[in-house]
Amino acid sequence: MKRVEELNRQLLQKHPAAFHCLSPLGRRLFFPQGVPVQAAQAKDCRFNATIGQLLNDSGKASPLPSMAQAISGLSNEEVFQYQPQGGRKRLREQWKNKILREVDCQNISMPVTCMGLTQGLSIAADLFVDENTDVLLPNPRWGNYDLIFGVRQTGNIINYKVMDGPGDDPFEWTFNVSGIAKAIAQIRHKGVLVLNIPSNPVGYSPSWEEVIQLVEAIKTAKKPLTIVLDEAYKGMEWEKGIINHSLIQELKMLDPAKFLVMKVDGATKEMFFFGGRIAFVTFVCSSDVGEALEEKVLGAIRSSVSALPSPSQALTLKALESKTLREETFEIRKMLKERYLRLKSLLTASPLRNWKYNSAFFTLISAPNGAEETRLRLIEKGVGVVSVPSVKSIRLSYSTVPKEDLEPLIKIVEQNI
Amino acid sequence: MKRVEELNRQLLQKHPAAFHCLSPLGRRLFFPQGVPVQAAQAKDCRFNATIGQLLNDSGKASPLPSMAQAISGLSNEEVFQYQPQGGRKRLREQWKNKILREVDCQNISMPVTCMGLTQGLSIAADLFVDENTDVLLPNPRWGNYDLIFGVRQTGNIINYKVMDGPGDDPFEWTFNVSGIAKAIAQIRHKGVLVLNIPSNPVGYSPSWEEVIQLVEAIKTAKKPLTIVLDEAYKGMEWEKGIINHSLIQELKMLDPAKFLVMKVDGATKEMFFFGGRIAFVTFVCSSDVGEALEEKVLGAIRSSVSALPSPSQALTLKALESKTLREETFEIRKMLKERYLRLKSLLTASPLRNWKYNSAFFTLISAPNGAEETRLRLIEKGVGVVSVPSVKSIRLSYSTVPKEDLEPLIKIVEQNI
Repeated sequence: MKRVEELNRQLLQKHPAAFHCLSPLGRRLFFPQGVPVQAAQAKDCRFNATIGQLLNDSGKASPLPSMAQAISGLSNEEVFQYQPQGGRKRLREQWKNKILREVDCQNISMPVTCMGLTQGLSIAADLFVDENTDVLLPNPRWGNYDLIFGVRQTGNIINYKVMDGPGDDPFEWTFNVSGIAKAIAQIRHKGVLVLNIPSNPVGYSPSWEEVIQLVEAIKTAKKPLTIVLDEAYKGMEWEKGIINHSLIQELKMLDPAKFLVMKVDGATKEMFFFGGRIAFVTFVCSSDVGEALEEKVLGAIRSSVSALPSPSQALTLKALESKTLREETFEIRKMLKERYLRLKSLLTASPLRNWKYNSAFFTLISAPNGAEETRLRLIEKGVGVVSVPSVKSIRLSYSTVPKEDLEPLIKIVEQNI
Repeated sequence: MKRVEELNRQLLQKHPAAFHCLSPLGRRLFFPQGVPVQAAQAKDCRFNATIGQLLNDSGKASPLPSMAQAISGLSNEEVFQYQPQGGRKRLREQWKNKILREVDCQNISMPVTCMGLTQGLSIAADLFVDENTDVLLPNPRWGNYDLIFGVRQTGNIINYKVMDGPGDDPFEWTFNVSGIAKAIAQIRHKGVLVLNIPSNPVGYSPSWEEVIQLVEAIKTAKKPLTIVLDEAYKGMEWEKGIINHSLIQELKMLDPAKFLVMKVDGATKEMFFFGGRIAFVTFVCSSDVGEALEEKVLGAIRSSVSALPSPSQALTLKALESKTLREETFEIRKMLKERYLRLKSLLTASPLRNWKYNSAFFTLISAPNGAEETRLRLIEKGVGVVSVPSVKSIRLSYSTVPKEDLEPLIKIVEQNI
């Protein structure tokens, strides 16, 4: 029996009123055994490579120094009092400035602050997804996409493979533009295309050439299409020749009669503030349209969480206004890049079959004996990873693994794949 | 034209794809001109009595000392890293202990942490409200109830008057149990009864006798009924003889074949941590039912905001574990009670017609010339209040007004009512 059916039966038998009071959404809801559960199971592992947050090479939290130092300097007002709906004005302006330093695109709306990348995506689902909407999702993908776009809002999910190629060696596959084009051609009435670049769990960002092909594919859409850019891992590009700025730069010229572009990003990964839950939604559109969409977003936030956490906003703003933000970010990215390079050389010399990767925190490794089976076996050996059953692979997150631990970790994976 | 129609027309004209991509929820969403907007308009007023947060008698933020002192002692781990889905275990346990110190009710579920009272209520709506659900809401009420229960989820709203009586002097009215009973009798298939005690905006908590009548009225329900207790202002009771603990104590014996009781409460008001966005949802039920409902709630949170802010959880936990929490809370409540008593004596001697009140942060004052007109006139005179048009009254929040300011404030209201 499916987990959700078990829950509903439990309620019906033991507390009939609870069952009979459930809404259709209430009946659909359950808590998937995804990354949070798998991370909890791996918490005692010697090597814990489950979760997309960051530990330094001593295994400690590694915040931006400007945030860590700011904590004791926060005023009571900025910690304990309400902040305006949609976020502190200065915070939103500074985030907009940050985007504008990255891309040359004047027609973007004022970013609205929201509760982490999840709420940004959930707002996209609230605004644009219903049962008549085809939602084009990458496969493999972050499991929470299914809950957001398929359970909370009941979109018709169309999968497109992130990577594809003629053979069966995922290291030879490339960004699957033709798969995206085919998915776009399937849209019946209106669509939402979710692009997650750099990708979780693949850890891939397309080359500039692949980006040009992607834009051409998007232009073939015949039905109204919202393009949701999940750019959580922007800035974590470890190779040259791959897209290293927001895709809004390439999509800003799309016809507003047919396309709407929505960028979801945040401090969670980009500023290593995992516990803060500060993200932003921004639209590519004229300023009056931006104001109307902003009000829709504020309505979605007001009716779901209302105000946003003040301490998190204060800390994010301190970092954004720090004169040394660039250097601080560079130092942490350097640590991650060194791990990436170390892992790359280890995997090159290894019989393991890993997917092509060049960015974010992850790599996928083929698990021919089954993703979930391999994950459980590895936990017993002291290695925590995340299973990705849809592509029979395991996801290894090097963001939480000190560089020196990568070699023994890969050894254990080799012996237990 | 309604605000939401204006927004939709703007999108259709200026960015057709944005309009055509909207879901039914996306089309319904707008941002009501409620308390946040009215508070922003009043921000330059000499006397700002708009918002339900707290300022001390010097007009400064007034956090619990144990929280304010804790900020600089927080570890990087508890600020910057993810915390478990549904909140830190210790935080949830401590909140449960807090409830159990207040009431004698063993069959409550483990509280799930959520993003402020709003998310607690929004989860209630997600789980239990659809278009076939009659949602019984107090009138007057916090404006956000409409967005949560009527716009985000499309319940059929049935209003019940919070206070009623034979005459037209609201000071003579009493808690309107018969109105609640009549509303319950109107439920067609299944219902949600929202009880907000102490009440916002009335500032009223029923007497023990009224509570007994209320329980009897609830028992008359013929259809499955979820009772949502919005107990945001619990603990702020300024008179003797009124209910001063959670209503779950009185409702715990309800038949699970017909009733489900859900408590929504939080640190926002009870611990004066307005900027933290830490609240909890707790069910009255057996432990296995509690686990099933907890998983439903976790699914609702995972698909809307995922993890919760770590700094806010850390600070709330510090206060809950402080040995001096009781004394700290008492000191702040004392300041509020002194303002309440001062205001009461001022209003007794005043020609203003105020509603009966005894708790929370508010009182309502009749505005015979129109609520919104009076609010705008008062802003010009340097007094910020919130308009409550449905009962032609203004809401005065004394939580943000130093005691010494109450007399000149009331003078200005008298001259401009």
